[in-house]
Amino acid sequence: MGALILHEDPVSGNCYKIRLTAAHLGIPIERRAYDIRRGETRTASFLAGVDAAGRIPVLQVENRFLPESNAACAYLAHGSALAPSDRFEHADMLRWMFWEQYSHEPNIATLRFWRHLVGEANLSPAQAALVPAKEVAGREALSLMDRHLATRGWFVGERLTLADITLYAYTHLASEGGFDLSAHPALRAWLARVAAQPGHIAFDA
Amino acid sequence: MGALILHEDPVSGNCYKIRLTAAHLGIPIERRAYDIRRGETRTASFLAGVDAAGRIPVLQVENRFLPESNAACAYLAHGSALAPSDRFEHADMLRWMFWEQYSHEPNIATLRFWRHLVGEANLSPAQAALVPAKEVAGREALSLMDRHLATRGWFVGERLTLADITLYAYTHLASEGGFDLSAHPALRAWLARVAAQPGHIAFDA
Repeated sequence: MGALILHEDPVSGNCYKIRLTAAHLGIPIERRAYDIRRGETRTASFLAGVDAAGRIPVLQVENRFLPESNAACAYLAHGSALAPSDRFEHADMLRWMFWEQYSHEPNIATLRFWRHLVGEANLSPAQAALVPAKEVAGREALSLMDRHLATRGWFVGERLTLADITLYAYTHLASEGGFDLSAHPALRAWLARVAAQPGHIAFDA
Repeated sequence: MGALILHEDPVSGNCYKIRLTAAHLGIPIERRAYDIRRGETRTASFLAGVDAAGRIPVLQVENRFLPESNAACAYLAHGSALAPSDRFEHADMLRWMFWEQYSHEPNIATLRFWRHLVGEANLSPAQAALVPAKEVAGREALSLMDRHLATRGWFVGERLTLADITLYAYTHLASEGGFDLSAHPALRAWLARVAAQPGHIAFDA
């Protein structure tokens, strides 16, 4: 594994996933910060040199660039205890990571970004029109997680995997998106369990 | 690997991904069909026995159930030539599969479902309001693919991987969503390249 640079915005939960994975694995990463709200990932140099789509996070591995937060976590955890070697469990871990990007992040992370970082008064009419559907879908996602965790300690198998780390990032910030976890005791216990693991680092660490 | 059953709707590109992966690998799969437009994945027996979220595809491996199309493809391709063993290339393959679920499928597959299968006249006002943004985002996704393929034959490395298979599924149906590929020659050449591979099967095979 070559020298690693994380191109990130520190306010992003997707970027935190990668730092949290690296912390668990004891892998040092150089952090390079951009302010997405000031358009710093849309400059000509970022688009030409880091990511043509103007998005973060991007994990730079020497002179190669890896977008998509969950792919960067998979790169770091390759062959480690965070990625099960059992064929079904490995696929089941990926299942939760795909689910996170399809059913969780677009609702919970987006509402957290809009409400906590942009401000609801500053949303465009098109964005504001999406809020109710994202609230419903975000609540459904949290409820599904709570039901899954009612009978088990971790999302996959018997220990912490990338499924937990990638889902933790925006779930532990869900209140900033206006979501209430008080009716989800299994989910709250799991959040505390993840945060108590050796190697854990806080969002603002 | 135990006996495999694919719980699917034959009209779904997400289900086709799994059949296409299995065909390339010569893995036999029993197909069990449900009509999502008739609510056949929302019955009590489906919710209790296959998937609590009422979604397809689900790959059943003996008595275990794996939702999320791209996770099912990863399960089938584990350790095969469709999944690069190189650490960076493997993560780069996952990068395109996460991108497919986040930036491609919600736009291109959803518009194809609405226009080709539901019918635009039957959309709810909330769905109809989402069409313009999905058209823009879908065109951006196709354009990004075309630029990536302008200088290379495959999404990752020098041969067909799951990145190509999972992206092929809805890209080759994009016209059913109202998308025009005529301005994307590299993308059209790649579609033909994928379809010409040994082991390829058609959507309706």
